[in-house]
Amino acid sequence: MAMVEDRELTLSTEDYSLLTDLYQLTMIACYVGEGLEDKPASFELFVRHFPDKFGYLIAMGLAQALDYLEKLHFTSQQIKALQNTGIFAHAPLKFWSLLESGRFNGDVWAVPEGTAIFANEPLLRVEAPLWQAQLIETYLLNTINYQTLIATKAARLRDVAGQEAVLLEFGTRRAFSPQGSMWAARAAIAGGLDATSNVLAALKLGRKPSGTMAHSLVMAIGAMEGGEDEAFSAFHRYFPAAPLLIDTYDSIAAARRLADKVREGKMELMGVRLDSGDLVELSQKVRSLLPEVTIFASGDLDEWEIARLKEAGASIDGYGLGTKLVTGSPVNGVYKIVEIDGIPTMKQSSKKATYPGRKQIFRSQEKERILSDRLGLAHETPNSNEQPLLELVMQEGKQIKDSPTIETIQKRTQISVASLPSETRQLNNPIPITVKISDGLESLRLSWIASH
Amino acid sequence: MAMVEDRELTLSTEDYSLLTDLYQLTMIACYVGEGLEDKPASFELFVRHFPDKFGYLIAMGLAQALDYLEKLHFTSQQIKALQNTGIFAHAPLKFWSLLESGRFNGDVWAVPEGTAIFANEPLLRVEAPLWQAQLIETYLLNTINYQTLIATKAARLRDVAGQEAVLLEFGTRRAFSPQGSMWAARAAIAGGLDATSNVLAALKLGRKPSGTMAHSLVMAIGAMEGGEDEAFSAFHRYFPAAPLLIDTYDSIAAARRLADKVREGKMELMGVRLDSGDLVELSQKVRSLLPEVTIFASGDLDEWEIARLKEAGASIDGYGLGTKLVTGSPVNGVYKIVEIDGIPTMKQSSKKATYPGRKQIFRSQEKERILSDRLGLAHETPNSNEQPLLELVMQEGKQIKDSPTIETIQKRTQISVASLPSETRQLNNPIPITVKISDGLESLRLSWIASH
Repeated sequence: MAMVEDRELTLSTEDYSLLTDLYQLTMIACYVGEGLEDKPASFELFVRHFPDKFGYLIAMGLAQALDYLEKLHFTSQQIKALQNTGIFAHAPLKFWSLLESGRFNGDVWAVPEGTAIFANEPLLRVEAPLWQAQLIETYLLNTINYQTLIATKAARLRDVAGQEAVLLEFGTRRAFSPQGSMWAARAAIAGGLDATSNVLAALKLGRKPSGTMAHSLVMAIGAMEGGEDEAFSAFHRYFPAAPLLIDTYDSIAAARRLADKVREGKMELMGVRLDSGDLVELSQKVRSLLPEVTIFASGDLDEWEIARLKEAGASIDGYGLGTKLVTGSPVNGVYKIVEIDGIPTMKQSSKKATYPGRKQIFRSQEKERILSDRLGLAHETPNSNEQPLLELVMQEGKQIKDSPTIETIQKRTQISVASLPSETRQLNNPIPITVKISDGLESLRLSWIASH
Repeated sequence: MAMVEDRELTLSTEDYSLLTDLYQLTMIACYVGEGLEDKPASFELFVRHFPDKFGYLIAMGLAQALDYLEKLHFTSQQIKALQNTGIFAHAPLKFWSLLESGRFNGDVWAVPEGTAIFANEPLLRVEAPLWQAQLIETYLLNTINYQTLIATKAARLRDVAGQEAVLLEFGTRRAFSPQGSMWAARAAIAGGLDATSNVLAALKLGRKPSGTMAHSLVMAIGAMEGGEDEAFSAFHRYFPAAPLLIDTYDSIAAARRLADKVREGKMELMGVRLDSGDLVELSQKVRSLLPEVTIFASGDLDEWEIARLKEAGASIDGYGLGTKLVTGSPVNGVYKIVEIDGIPTMKQSSKKATYPGRKQIFRSQEKERILSDRLGLAHETPNSNEQPLLELVMQEGKQIKDSPTIETIQKRTQISVASLPSETRQLNNPIPITVKISDGLESLRLSWIASH
């Protein structure tokens, strides 16, 4: 932790207290100087605008956020490293003792992972001493922004591909860092995919890793033993259940030779994968040659391309999803102070105004269909057909519930998506659920503006 | 490492051997079964198509790739976890002893970090026993794809903003995982940015973290002590050198009040930050009010927006770069086998064909200007005005050079970009350097096709 380059850039849980923007720490020092550090503050995490015209978001990343909060503390080494930067030369001394002894002991209200939410609805509300609520902004946004993006894409992929399709997460090589690949795998499965090819992620999530084979095997064994067929036979000998990748040279020629073997009883083939070319035409031809075999497709696929393939009559049973699932435009969640010492706060910057006060989402459902949401104040009473979405998940710094399994979250995602109207689920110009503003919240906003 | 959910998903260096796609391991088991695991193989890592019409890429991520290779090994726990999946039931027993005893002991040739490269040019060549070269594909692509993307964007930002502009990396909250934010910070600075707001990344990289202040401070102190001015005074008391964020309510009104204080000698103000509104108009007005003060801008900025702001006459000295720097479309690097046991290999899939054989990039320069590149075979002799770009950086699994500091890489990036023709550097329709194919490589390709 000294001011000398450590190019490994691996992270331990202990490191995470410093995984924050500098200004969180300088602002805390300022709060200490003003005697405000322990004032009770409420911050809310929400998304103003959705990426890529998403009709809904699937909340994800809470588990990692809560783990971070429970473990948060500063080591004396870290404090020394901060002091050595010289940045805090004018900061009050009490700032250092606060960091030394401090842990997170606030409350957290959150929407359960796997729940569909809409613009401006808080996924999370933190109620904690001001300095703690400020410190954690960067990490909370990091975990929730990314996992929410991936879970939402996964839910959309599942919705478009159908419940029967096999959906595999293949994105590790394109993910933004090794840990990015781990979080992507978790959120993808929790959002509706079946499995990941990432061995470490699968094992850490208690799942079986999945995969097929690569062109290099065809090329290597092909070069050494004669050709593509030798590569297929060899791989099939050790992994009889694994799909064979047939597009290294000529997909249809390969499928034809495999079909001969299957017909002659020389091979029990479970699946093939197509990774290039016209997937509609190729999959139909492969189906006619190998009617009993599972056909996988891969290669820059996303929910739009799967919709197009299905529409065009492609005969595909499973999809490998990589690049377009794990990268792209982010979810731009923000984390804003909404109350300090009982006083509601709001921001008026052009196009970035916020609603003041501690809020709750009241959701109206009828026969497992979402009708509308109402954004109100936390103390408001739900109407008879409304359900409050934000639940108390951490009290005085301790998690108060067992965390759900990834299977439970996956199930919740599935139910969430099914409860949305079709116009909210459609890919083209989806229409989000109406989010009404409660009378109480609107009058608080107006009275805040009138008094400022 | 058991098949039970470990939701922390933190990573230690030891974990990295399993940070791979399942098929790498199943293919290795197949190679073992066929007696091919130790055949000398060469794989090359290159990019077929550039993202977002980039004219060049800045190679980055080699340091982490080499560290990974030096440390790579399997623990008995990891091997047990793999066995417990049941996937390897038909794999030859020797597969397990290979993993147990195996380490990476191959050679690596690479383009130095900070070097500009073009489509189809290998950034890296691995020469190793087949099983080792196969295993490492996923991790190598993960580190090099992401850091190359960020370094390239950073180099473009620096090129557009000019050498005098202060460029700060603010992307941690939007980065794809905590480790993603660390790698982004490293590659951004190595690519030309001045500093990062990520405290942990800055300290691990031996740099001073940087930052301003957030709206929450204005709102919190404003609510408790009266208004925006009280927040400014308080923050300035403890951090006199830090820029003040002036757009929480009305940027120009705030700047006017600050200008009064400065004129009355009540405040020595170093800088202000604008995070919303019309940055051209606001920055010009702030400049007229506060002519001596550094003006920072932030808010979804990228190289295009900086170019637009400069073109429109904005008066901005520094930029905070976040979301659009650390997320977005990836660099789609691939890693392909090019030779096995002395036999060149290539792939013929539609639109994904590769060049066979072990290659070298021969770069022609004149007076520090790049003229053209020639992609040839590794054993070819450079012409008199050519420089080979791929250097031997690892021999028999050991790094053979001291790794350069981040400052050295930053300098190399700067020189690389300066050596490119202006049509390669321009944002609109950049024209890459011509990459010629050597006669030797072309005739190898033709003879390969003729014999297959």
